Amino acid sequence: MSIILNSPLDMHLHLRDGDMLKVVAPLSATSFSGAVIMPNLIPPITTKDELIAYRKRVIDASKDSAFTPYMTLFFKSTYSKEFLTQVKDEISAIKLYPAGITTNSDGGVSGFNIDELKDTLNSMSELNIPLAIHGETNGFVMDREAEFISIYEMLASNFPNLKIIMEHITTKESVALLDRYDNLYATITLHHLLITLDDVAGGMLQPHLFCKPIAKRVEDREALREVAFKGHPKVMFGSDSAPHPQHAKEASFCSAGVFTAPIALQLLTELFIENSNLDNLQKFISTNGQNIYNIKVPKKRVILEEKSFIVPKKYGDVVPIYAGEEIRYTIKEIK
Amino acid sequence: MSIILNSPLDMHLHLRDGDMLKVVAPLSATSFSGAVIMPNLIPPITTKDELIAYRKRVIDASKDSAFTPYMTLFFKSTYSKEFLTQVKDEISAIKLYPAGITTNSDGGVSGFNIDELKDTLNSMSELNIPLAIHGETNGFVMDREAEFISIYEMLASNFPNLKIIMEHITTKESVALLDRYDNLYATITLHHLLITLDDVAGGMLQPHLFCKPIAKRVEDREALREVAFKGHPKVMFGSDSAPHPQHAKEASFCSAGVFTAPIALQLLTELFIENSNLDNLQKFISTNGQNIYNIKVPKKRVILEEKSFIVPKKYGDVVPIYAGEEIRYTIKEIK
Repeated sequence: MSIILNSPLDMHLHLRDGDMLKVVAPLSATSFSGAVIMPNLIPPITTKDELIAYRKRVIDASKDSAFTPYMTLFFKSTYSKEFLTQVKDEISAIKLYPAGITTNSDGGVSGFNIDELKDTLNSMSELNIPLAIHGETNGFVMDREAEFISIYEMLASNFPNLKIIMEHITTKESVALLDRYDNLYATITLHHLLITLDDVAGGMLQPHLFCKPIAKRVEDREALREVAFKGHPKVMFGSDSAPHPQHAKEASFCSAGVFTAPIALQLLTELFIENSNLDNLQKFISTNGQNIYNIKVPKKRVILEEKSFIVPKKYGDVVPIYAGEEIRYTIKEIK
Repeated sequence: MSIILNSPLDMHLHLRDGDMLKVVAPLSATSFSGAVIMPNLIPPITTKDELIAYRKRVIDASKDSAFTPYMTLFFKSTYSKEFLTQVKDEISAIKLYPAGITTNSDGGVSGFNIDELKDTLNSMSELNIPLAIHGETNGFVMDREAEFISIYEMLASNFPNLKIIMEHITTKESVALLDRYDNLYATITLHHLLITLDDVAGGMLQPHLFCKPIAKRVEDREALREVAFKGHPKVMFGSDSAPHPQHAKEASFCSAGVFTAPIALQLLTELFIENSNLDNLQKFISTNGQNIYNIKVPKKRVILEEKSFIVPKKYGDVVPIYAGEEIRYTIKEIK
């Protein structure tokens, strides 16, 4: 039996820059029709020129003409309406990071003072630019996302016409919030559908499964699975695939990020075939993202089959999830 | 100002065997008067001959005549009263591990069936052999110790004359249990007085702070600090210092254990001077352990002073807690 996925999209992807970009961009570009590209480079992308130059580097590295990078800017409360008007057609969203919360987020927002944010958010709202948010406080690691709920509520209620995307949600609280505000949407990663904190730190410690937000409890994973498996229209796949060189993951201080992009479609197929159906996977992997972002995407058909595949131990110098393990589905053909 | 600690004891220590034993035994033996030595070698210590041979290897490696290793056996429900009578004078306690719960614990107890355990526990009770327990279930990593409370209660109430030591407690629930049963005691590590899960996984992931039981929440650490700082008579210092070679800690799959032994007295001095007093540290570090285990210990005076000390990056091939960092107290003299 062949499984066909049409124009898969990754609505949250880290491609980095330089040599790492050259390694990882083709791995996503070959099997996805497009991806929302995160702007947290060093320094982060905050100008139109940087954005256009980065898009060109991404396209050059991608080596697949049927792949569209949907670019994002790093949120600053200093963005004027004039600037946003100029940049509007070049971007798909603006990504807001609380300061210091994850990799390369030092220039992010400190505190969530509505007076400080409102001009930029009103302009985004008027220009129909979605706001993508890494929703964590600086609190205890297991509570950070749940503690951010009140900030999501404040933003959703004060800016009812602003499309707000709760990125890489990991908790049952965030799932419950989805249906309480019309303007809230979410991405869900592959790894948060697969693992809990027990996989990260319950047996041996597994740095390649360590990410931000950290994987939570079984009941949280169940809540994520439930909305993903039913193809909930406000939920999109966003891998948050985040490559680090091996020496940065197996160290005294290990970087946060799980690298899943090259095997995401294979593992999602397995998960959905076992727990849901391919129609809902098609919604999760493409249709919902197209509708939420209101984008046209390149046509691409990814054909998978049930055939065992050994996950490579490394892609370049990056160790993927399930490195060296056998998985059940393989990409047979892409056209 | 000089600080004097008399006959410090480490009531929970892993010394391993072979080359590792030769590296770490002198580091504890030089500054401690004695230590309760864990039996989870490969294979674990379960016979009198193995125990006597291991004690000899520990003493040979220690290179300090004023250091007593208090030996333990690995708990088996098959130990007969006859066997326990023979071995009684050679051991200070028997250590019970739930199966598979931590490093080298595969031969431990599965389930806690009182009918299976009662003969051995009654014999230990009659022979006055303390039972030391690694109290975790196989549940979610943050809940394992709290879930074990009911097993502690079952054991404490069914064997009221058995001295039960809750090893390396990490939660407010375990602290609360201490005063509910006369026959329950506890060890507390240095690292659980210092860190929470945020230090392990809240910023970058720090495998050298990864241990079992995993560090918990701030309120749990506060509960541990409260009983330690007041010198609660049922609470003893047990470092659970657990050396692994660097390559086993900085890897795809990292071993559990924090190596603290060589700087434990310096860091405890700093903590107690800031939060309590040296009388209570003396109780925590020696007097309580002597009383609970009813042991006479070699005389040793450890004299510390406030003088900055840079923690070595490694001892042999083992990376200690706070490697390369500056701490405030130094051991000036031992006599």
